[in-house]
Amino acid sequence: MIEVELGELIAALGGELVGSPGLRLARLGPLESADPQTLSFLSNPRYQSQLASTQAACVIVAPAMRDAAAARGAAIVTSDPYLYFARCTQWWAQRLRPLSAPRVHPSALIDASARIGEGVDIGPLAVIEAGARIAAGARVGAHCVIGERASVGEGSKLSARVTIGFDCVIGQRCIIHSGAVIGADGFGFAPNEGRWEKIEQLGAVRIGNDVEIGANSCIDRGALDDTVLEDGVKLDNLVQIGHNVKIGAHTALAGCAGVAGSATIGAHCTVGGGAIILGHLSLADHVNVSAATVVTRTIAKPGHYSGVFPFDDNASWEKNAATLRQLHALRERLRALEKKNSP
Amino acid sequence: MIEVELGELIAALGGELVGSPGLRLARLGPLESADPQTLSFLSNPRYQSQLASTQAACVIVAPAMRDAAAARGAAIVTSDPYLYFARCTQWWAQRLRPLSAPRVHPSALIDASARIGEGVDIGPLAVIEAGARIAAGARVGAHCVIGERASVGEGSKLSARVTIGFDCVIGQRCIIHSGAVIGADGFGFAPNEGRWEKIEQLGAVRIGNDVEIGANSCIDRGALDDTVLEDGVKLDNLVQIGHNVKIGAHTALAGCAGVAGSATIGAHCTVGGGAIILGHLSLADHVNVSAATVVTRTIAKPGHYSGVFPFDDNASWEKNAATLRQLHALRERLRALEKKNSP
Amino acid sequence: MIEVELGELIAALGGELVGSPGLRLARLGPLESADPQTLSFLSNPRYQSQLASTQAACVIVAPAMRDAAAARGAAIVTSDPYLYFARCTQWWAQRLRPLSAPRVHPSALIDASARIGEGVDIGPLAVIEAGARIAAGARVGAHCVIGERASVGEGSKLSARVTIGFDCVIGQRCIIHSGAVIGADGFGFAPNEGRWEKIEQLGAVRIGNDVEIGANSCIDRGALDDTVLEDGVKLDNLVQIGHNVKIGAHTALAGCAGVAGSATIGAHCTVGGGAIILGHLSLADHVNVSAATVVTRTIAKPGHYSGVFPFDDNASWEKNAATLRQLHALRERLRALEKKNSP
Repeated sequence: MIEVELGELIAALGGELVGSPGLRLARLGPLESADPQTLSFLSNPRYQSQLASTQAACVIVAPAMRDAAAARGAAIVTSDPYLYFARCTQWWAQRLRPLSAPRVHPSALIDASARIGEGVDIGPLAVIEAGARIAAGARVGAHCVIGERASVGEGSKLSARVTIGFDCVIGQRCIIHSGAVIGADGFGFAPNEGRWEKIEQLGAVRIGNDVEIGANSCIDRGALDDTVLEDGVKLDNLVQIGHNVKIGAHTALAGCAGVAGSATIGAHCTVGGGAIILGHLSLADHVNVSAATVVTRTIAKPGHYSGVFPFDDNASWEKNAATLRQLHALRERLRALEKKNSP
Repeated sequence: MIEVELGELIAALGGELVGSPGLRLARLGPLESADPQTLSFLSNPRYQSQLASTQAACVIVAPAMRDAAAARGAAIVTSDPYLYFARCTQWWAQRLRPLSAPRVHPSALIDASARIGEGVDIGPLAVIEAGARIAAGARVGAHCVIGERASVGEGSKLSARVTIGFDCVIGQRCIIHSGAVIGADGFGFAPNEGRWEKIEQLGAVRIGNDVEIGANSCIDRGALDDTVLEDGVKLDNLVQIGHNVKIGAHTALAGCAGVAGSATIGAHCTVGGGAIILGHLSLADHVNVSAATVVTRTIAKPGHYSGVFPFDDNASWEKNAATLRQLHALRERLRALEKKNSP
Repeated sequence: MIEVELGELIAALGGELVGSPGLRLARLGPLESADPQTLSFLSNPRYQSQLASTQAACVIVAPAMRDAAAARGAAIVTSDPYLYFARCTQWWAQRLRPLSAPRVHPSALIDASARIGEGVDIGPLAVIEAGARIAAGARVGAHCVIGERASVGEGSKLSARVTIGFDCVIGQRCIIHSGAVIGADGFGFAPNEGRWEKIEQLGAVRIGNDVEIGANSCIDRGALDDTVLEDGVKLDNLVQIGHNVKIGAHTALAGCAGVAGSATIGAHCTVGGGAIILGHLSLADHVNVSAATVVTRTIAKPGHYSGVFPFDDNASWEKNAATLRQLHALRERLRALEKKNSP
């Protein structure tokens, strides 16, 4: 735990201060569990009622909430409280967890032909293969394996135990979490008399700048061309990206989502947890797919799309599910009745 | 393969012996594939018919089955045959696979400030970072990475290639399988003019005692507070637990299940394979969620909940699925007909 | 990039050449993005229209397309263009990425009792435990962990960071991608007064020849007997195979699929991405399960099976999903109307 003065935060991040700059803060936290040393925030006006009752030392609010916030204590007034809060977490994390001075751990195995930039940090037992390039300021965690001719851009940060396959390219300021595998073979086989003949995957993976990739997620190399994630894409944990997929800038996929080969997802999309996007189709920009939805055809228009069986108590579900298997027949029966009832 | 005498087993685990303590057993196995050196069990009376035909050397049965079992050969009579069988597997495993004497492998990289308890085993090339604590009798497998200030409780066992993030706490007697990632960043971003601004994840992960975590599963650190798994929780492989999730004691989640951020799951729940629990909702204690069900709202009452599209041959499914997209319209048509038919 | 002459390819792979053997090729690629140095293929007659417009140097076609292909330029005529293309990728990959001479990296930790065959390649920091066997010509990547008495067959290739548990057996010519975990414990517990008692998993995993396993996939060891994948099985990334599962020869499972314990899948099946196969059931040979389908009971007949909620724009989905929860009641209402309307 660290203590900071409210004035320090304002000096670093801006915002209008209501209250004393000498107020001491020890943590960030939600309104409802805040204590008198907590900095909290109100981003959704729906939760305004929590403002009166919170114990928080200081609350980040929008201008419309200035008076209500000031009536109860210190406040930071800013046009986008949630964004301001995000920056507080960044500022706080830098103080809580200052980066160690970069060093190349002596146990790392770095091929003589690899190019290592200025200020690079390489963790214990990392393996950097021939011709790989780690750009200035990048951090490669313990036990990472960076394949031949792969490239990690400036300021990118790989947690422990990340695998980057040969020839794959990671942009600048990316964050890749433990267990992620970038550049395994795509899943491609030609049928041959009841057996599968491997289609070697001749492409690689290209990842833009400011991309974040969650723990144990996989991005396969392309069959012929590359699999591509554009700038600012965010993947949660255990996400599967098949070969030849293209994901547009600033699109985010939540945990356990899967994208099959050769799908193209536009920019500024969101895909909910556990959703599946089938292969060889495309999603327009600004498409939002609900969690656990299965996208089986191209979506050409921006919008919000869903497809989840509504859960119920098991007995009700069983009855409805059983009836569902006769749904087409029910429609025919309804049609027959309608005919009978028409004049 | 090992051979044991039935009497040794009874001496270790109790139960009433019907037959000779000198009977030799070479394996544990199911009734239907048992051979004359197999110890088997009958836990479900539905399978009683297998009792007569099995070749098993000895069968573990409940008191109600004593006579039927004795009529065919040796038996162990005990109140809960399945539990007795579970203990047999534990006893057997200790004999089949005796633990090696604990040792710290010379290739492990252990920071000088880490605290290593009595009788700890640390595998080849494990990395234990500054301030980490490995309590007495714990086993840390090859290639594990234990982050700064993380803690592994007494007698816990990490298989090869487990990652524990900084500040995360693992309780006593836990079992964590290969590839699990505890304490990667939760998936949190604030939108900012079409881009995503990272919300640093300031919490950690706290895991109670007797928790088991499957291979390649992920448990994210909390955004502000900690992600918490209480005592006795069991996670299968490839399970995703989002940030700030709380899972109550003795709850079990099967493979490929995903729990989104800030969900709270009660104690003594079961969640089937591939089920998705959305974020910011809660499940009461003693809730059972069927496999592949998507939980989209809070479940306040114990019970069994399901929501799966019933599969069918593809042609039937296509017809029913197409009709499903007109279901609301069908209801309106039915309503109109009802109106027409009402007096 | 490499350049080859068309005649070299024909010499290696056969096929009837239409055009000059001296034609130079620099890449493989699809018809629509081909340039004048691209070798492309036409396997589906539906895409015949692309033949006229493609810039490709040469196109692989079936005999029926010979004249159309020859009218535009060079061609390779062969009975199965897609299979021929697969072999081209193999031939190309060997030239693009010639295998390095096998070597045992000095940083690998190999137990003195392990048996290492002729021409084996072992990567940096791999761990080969006591009694393990790596057969001739196998390649074990950086950071792999091969458990006690485990066995890797001739010519198999493990990418970086693969874990093979003790006693598990991998056949010949298998390919296993990074992060895969073979032989973690199956998920087995006996309930005991509200707690879970571990059932030790006494079996192992046996994998046949020519099996490919994707990145971060998991195959659990059996409870009593072994979990078995027969020859030619192909698993994509993030696939979960529970304990005691049997998968027949030449069956393929796409990414994020999950198979629960004790399921038996026949030979020559395909399982789509994200599909879930419940436990203790069986699928006949030649069953095709669509993506994201949940198989809840045994499938005894070959065929194509599906069960996915059709996605829609969110508003339409909401209305249909809400109505679905009353489907059984709707059927009753329809039945009542039918009764009323019957003579």
